[in-house]
Amino acid sequence: MFTLGIDYGTNSVRALLVRCANGQEIASCVVNYPSGQQGILLDPKDHHLARQHPGDYLLGLEKSVKGALAQAKKVKGFSPSAVVGIGVDTTGSSPIPVDKTNVPLALNKKWAKNLAAQCWLWKDHTSWREAAQITELAAKHRPQFLAKCGNTYSSEWWWSKIWHCRNVAPKVFDAAYSWVELCDWVPAVLAGVTDPVQVKRGVCAAGHKAMYCAEWGGLPDKEFLALLDPALAELRDRLYTEAHDASTAAGALCPDWAKKLGLPAGIPIAIGEFDVHYGAIGCGVTEGTLVKVIGTSTCDCGVVSAAKTVPDIPGICGIVKGAILPDYYGIEAGQSAVGDIFKWWVEGVCRGDASLHAKLGAEVAKQKPGQSGLLALDWNNGNRTILVDQRLTGLLLGQTLHTSSAEIYRALLEATAFGARAIIERIREYGVPLDRIVCAGGIARKDPLLMQIYADVTGCTMLVAGSSQACALGSAVAAAVLAGAHKDFATAQRKMTSLEKKQYRPIAANRKTYDELYALYRQLHDAFGGRNPTSDLGQVMKQLLTIKEAAN
Amino acid sequence: MFTLGIDYGTNSVRALLVRCANGQEIASCVVNYPSGQQGILLDPKDHHLARQHPGDYLLGLEKSVKGALAQAKKVKGFSPSAVVGIGVDTTGSSPIPVDKTNVPLALNKKWAKNLAAQCWLWKDHTSWREAAQITELAAKHRPQFLAKCGNTYSSEWWWSKIWHCRNVAPKVFDAAYSWVELCDWVPAVLAGVTDPVQVKRGVCAAGHKAMYCAEWGGLPDKEFLALLDPALAELRDRLYTEAHDASTAAGALCPDWAKKLGLPAGIPIAIGEFDVHYGAIGCGVTEGTLVKVIGTSTCDCGVVSAAKTVPDIPGICGIVKGAILPDYYGIEAGQSAVGDIFKWWVEGVCRGDASLHAKLGAEVAKQKPGQSGLLALDWNNGNRTILVDQRLTGLLLGQTLHTSSAEIYRALLEATAFGARAIIERIREYGVPLDRIVCAGGIARKDPLLMQIYADVTGCTMLVAGSSQACALGSAVAAAVLAGAHKDFATAQRKMTSLEKKQYRPIAANRKTYDELYALYRQLHDAFGGRNPTSDLGQVMKQLLTIKEAAN
Repeated sequence: MFTLGIDYGTNSVRALLVRCANGQEIASCVVNYPSGQQGILLDPKDHHLARQHPGDYLLGLEKSVKGALAQAKKVKGFSPSAVVGIGVDTTGSSPIPVDKTNVPLALNKKWAKNLAAQCWLWKDHTSWREAAQITELAAKHRPQFLAKCGNTYSSEWWWSKIWHCRNVAPKVFDAAYSWVELCDWVPAVLAGVTDPVQVKRGVCAAGHKAMYCAEWGGLPDKEFLALLDPALAELRDRLYTEAHDASTAAGALCPDWAKKLGLPAGIPIAIGEFDVHYGAIGCGVTEGTLVKVIGTSTCDCGVVSAAKTVPDIPGICGIVKGAILPDYYGIEAGQSAVGDIFKWWVEGVCRGDASLHAKLGAEVAKQKPGQSGLLALDWNNGNRTILVDQRLTGLLLGQTLHTSSAEIYRALLEATAFGARAIIERIREYGVPLDRIVCAGGIARKDPLLMQIYADVTGCTMLVAGSSQACALGSAVAAAVLAGAHKDFATAQRKMTSLEKKQYRPIAANRKTYDELYALYRQLHDAFGGRNPTSDLGQVMKQLLTIKEAAN
Repeated sequence: MFTLGIDYGTNSVRALLVRCANGQEIASCVVNYPSGQQGILLDPKDHHLARQHPGDYLLGLEKSVKGALAQAKKVKGFSPSAVVGIGVDTTGSSPIPVDKTNVPLALNKKWAKNLAAQCWLWKDHTSWREAAQITELAAKHRPQFLAKCGNTYSSEWWWSKIWHCRNVAPKVFDAAYSWVELCDWVPAVLAGVTDPVQVKRGVCAAGHKAMYCAEWGGLPDKEFLALLDPALAELRDRLYTEAHDASTAAGALCPDWAKKLGLPAGIPIAIGEFDVHYGAIGCGVTEGTLVKVIGTSTCDCGVVSAAKTVPDIPGICGIVKGAILPDYYGIEAGQSAVGDIFKWWVEGVCRGDASLHAKLGAEVAKQKPGQSGLLALDWNNGNRTILVDQRLTGLLLGQTLHTSSAEIYRALLEATAFGARAIIERIREYGVPLDRIVCAGGIARKDPLLMQIYADVTGCTMLVAGSSQACALGSAVAAAVLAGAHKDFATAQRKMTSLEKKQYRPIAANRKTYDELYALYRQLHDAFGGRNPTSDLGQVMKQLLTIKEAAN
C-alpha cells in the first residue's frame, strides 16, 4: 500500500509517493509554478504584495503526480492501483476568491490579469492596515478571538486579506461568491466539489487564520464582522460553519481527476492542512517536541494533549485544537523570513548565485561567534512571532570599513537564530514543555553551519528530520491513517517517520558569546519592536566592539 | 614665477606646479605609496590600526616632484629656476617617532617591520582607550584644553597615539627621541633639519591635535602630562615650545634635496599644514564660507577673524588661531569616513570595481528621496564631528527582501549628507556665520548626484572648487605668499583660486522628504551616540515605511 503526499510550497509543488509500511519514499516529482517571478506575482511599487495564479496549482498538480507515478513504475511491487489515499498540504493563509462553482475568479478570462483575483499568497502583507484594525476592534469587542492568535491579528491571515480586497478591489470582492483556503481548495478539486459551501474546511487553516473556534460557535459572529464591514458579515453565510481535523476525509477522488492522474477513483483524500502542520507530523511531532520547518520562512509547530489546559501565549500565532494531530492542541509560531533573507543577501544584494552561497558559506565557517562585531535583526519581511508586526524591517549594525559580505551573511544567519531563540523562550515562559527540537526543510539538511549556530544560540540540541520532504511525508501519513493502513497517527508516525543520525549539540564557548549577543539582540528587538521604547542604546555599538575584541 | 604644492594624501602623494600670477596648474604628478594595502599598513586582527611607512614619503616626494618637473618642461616659459617656493600639506594627526637626527625609527633596519615604529596614520584608532582617558583627565584637571577641541579628545590625535605607543610598544617609545607630525616632518626634510627640536612646527597640527595654545603657554604642561604618564612629561622637553602659522617659513630648500629634485637651493618652504587646511585656502576660504574637502573622509574648514571672539563649540574638532590663514581662527570639523564608505560598499561588500560604482550610480540616479525606506548612519569609521567617538559603528535600517545594493548605496550617500548637515547645524547654533559652501576633492567634482543630495539634505547651495587639487593648490598659494609673489593671502587667493560654474541648488520637494528623514537620522544618531539614550525608537521603522509609501 502506498499513499501520495502533495506539498504546495511557495515556488513549486511536490508529489511524493510513500510506502505505508515503512515510510519509504519511492518516487517524487517537483514542478515549478510557471507564472510571475519564481511563481509569485509581484507589484514593483509595493513590496508587500505577493499573489499566485491558481491555474499554476492545477497544472502543477497534474504534472507532479503524473511525474511521480511515472518514476514509481520502476519500483518493484508498485502499481497505481496500490495507491490508497492522498494528502495535501499547502502554504497559508492563502485565500482564493472563487465563483459559485468553486472555480477561482482568476481562471475566468475577465479576471485573469487582475492581481486581486488571484490567490493571496501567505506572504502578502498588503493588508497591514486591515490587520491593525481587526486587532483593534477585536481587542475592544472580542478579546477572546485575539487571545487565541497571540493578541495580534496578522496581515498574513484570512480576514485581513479578504477585507483588503473589499477595500481596494471591490469589483473582485463582489464577483467572488466565496473564498477558499488553498489547502481546502486543492482537496475539494480532487474530490470534485463544485460548491464552495460544500468544501470540507480544515480546522488548521480555519483555527489559526480565520479565528474559527468551537468555543464561540465557529467563525467570528456576524455582529463582529459587520463592525469590520457589513459585506464581510454577509460573506459569512457563504463560507462554512464547521471545520475538521485530520480524522475526517475531505472527500474521495472524483472520476475526472482519477482519470486525469491515472489513480483509482474513490480513494480518500485527507483534510487539507498547512505545509508545516503536516510537516510536523512528518517529523514525528509529539508532546515536548518543537518542529522547525526551515525554508524561505520558518514555521514552528508543537502539540499538547487536548486533555490539558493550554494557556494563551502572547505573540504566538495560534493554539488550535486538532490543527496538527487529532486530540491535540496545535501550537504554531514562526519567522516571516529565514532562507529568504539569506537569498536576498546573496542573490539580491551581492548579485551572486549558488556558487556565491557556497563561497560565503566557506568564509562564514572560518568566523568565530562575535568576531565580526555585527548584529542584525531578522525582520526583512516583518516579525511574525513574537511581535506579530509586519511593519518592521531589517537592521544591521556594527559595520566598519572592513566588514565583509561573508561577515554580514553570518550576522544574518545568527539573526534568524536569535529570532528562533525568542520564540523558544516565549513558549517555555508559558509552561509548554519543550525538550526536543526537530528541524526539517532544505536548509536544515544542507547547512550544517546554520544548524550549529542554532544549537549554540538556543542552547538546544538540533535534530534533523530523516525525510527531506517532511511536509509531503506528513500528508502521506495522514492519508495512510485515513485509508486504514495504520490504526492511528502515533503508530503511523512511528512506522513512517525517522530522524537523521547527525545531531548538532551546543558548544559551551559559543553559547557564552551568543548569550551576550542575544542580550543585545533583545535590546534592539524590544526597542525597535516598540516593546521597550525607552531602552538605552548608547552602549550597544561599544558592547559589540568589546565582544569583537574578545573574540579576536 | 611658479610654486610647488606637495599634497600627501592617504594613499598617494601629489606634486603640483602652479603659476603664481593666475593659479594655472601647469603640471602635476601622483605617486602611490608602495607599502601595505593601498599604502596603508594594516593588522587583520584589529580594524582600528592604520600605519604608513615613512620611506614611502621620501620615495613619493622625489618621484612626484621629478614627475611634475618633467611634465612642465613642455610648458612655454617654464624652467625649474622659476620655481620660487614650496608648500607641503599632509594628512594628520599622523605622528612619526624619530631618532635624534630626525630620522624616523622605521627607516632603521631594527625597527623597519615594527608597526609601532611607522607613521601613525590619521585614521588609526587603536588608541581609543587612551583618548577616553585623556578626555576624562582633562575634563577634571584642565577643562580649557578640552573646550578648544570640542570637549572630546580623539584617538586620531597626537597624544592618544603617542601614549598608546608607550603602552603597547614601550621599546619603540623609548627608542624615539622625539615625535614629529608628518606635515612638519616633510618640510623639515626638505629644509635639511636634522634635529627634531629645531623642526619648525605648524600651529595647525599643534593647535588642533596636540592641545597647543598660546593661552596656556604652548603644549600641555608637564604636570598634566605626568597625570597621563611621566614618560610623556619627559618627552615634552624634546618636542617644541612654539608653533607657527603660515606667515612663517619652515625653512629653505637644502642643497641636498635641491640637487635631488633639480630645484634652486634656498627657496622658501612654507610651514606645513594639514591637507584640508591648505585645501581651504585653495578653495578661496573667507569668513562665512565652509569648505568641505570630500574624499575618503570629509574635512570641513572655516575661518573667523582673530579680532572677533569665537565661542567653544561642543563636538567641533578645534578652533585654533592661525591654523588655516594667519590672523584668523581656523575651525575644523569632519566626518571620519565618506568616500571610504562608498568604496567599502561597492568594492568591499559587493566585490565590484569602478564599473560597479558607475552602474550603481546610474541606478541611484533613478531613485527618489525616501523611496527605498532605508536609513543609515555614516559611522563605519566612527564619528569625528559632532560626537567625537571612534567607538561607534555603521548602521543600516529599513531593509526588506527587495532592497537592492543600489538602494543601500544611495542610503549610504544620504547618510554622509545627514552627517554633513549635523555639522553645519552645530556650527550655526553657536553663531558662526556660514552662508556659502565650497566643496572640493575628487568626489565633489565627479559625483553630481552626491552634490545634489548634499544640497537637498542641507538646504544649502553647493559650490565646487575650480581646482581638482585644491589642497596642493593651497600649499602652492602659501608658498607664493611666502616667496613674495603676492602681498598677502587674500590677494593670492583672489588671483590663484576659482570656482566651477556648475552650482547645485536645493530642490524644494526633495528637501521636504529629507527633512523628515533627517529627523529620524538624528533620532538614531542621538540614541546610538548616547546623547539621547532613552529615545523611543518603536516608530522609526514604521515612519520610514510611511515615507517610502509616500515617495512611491
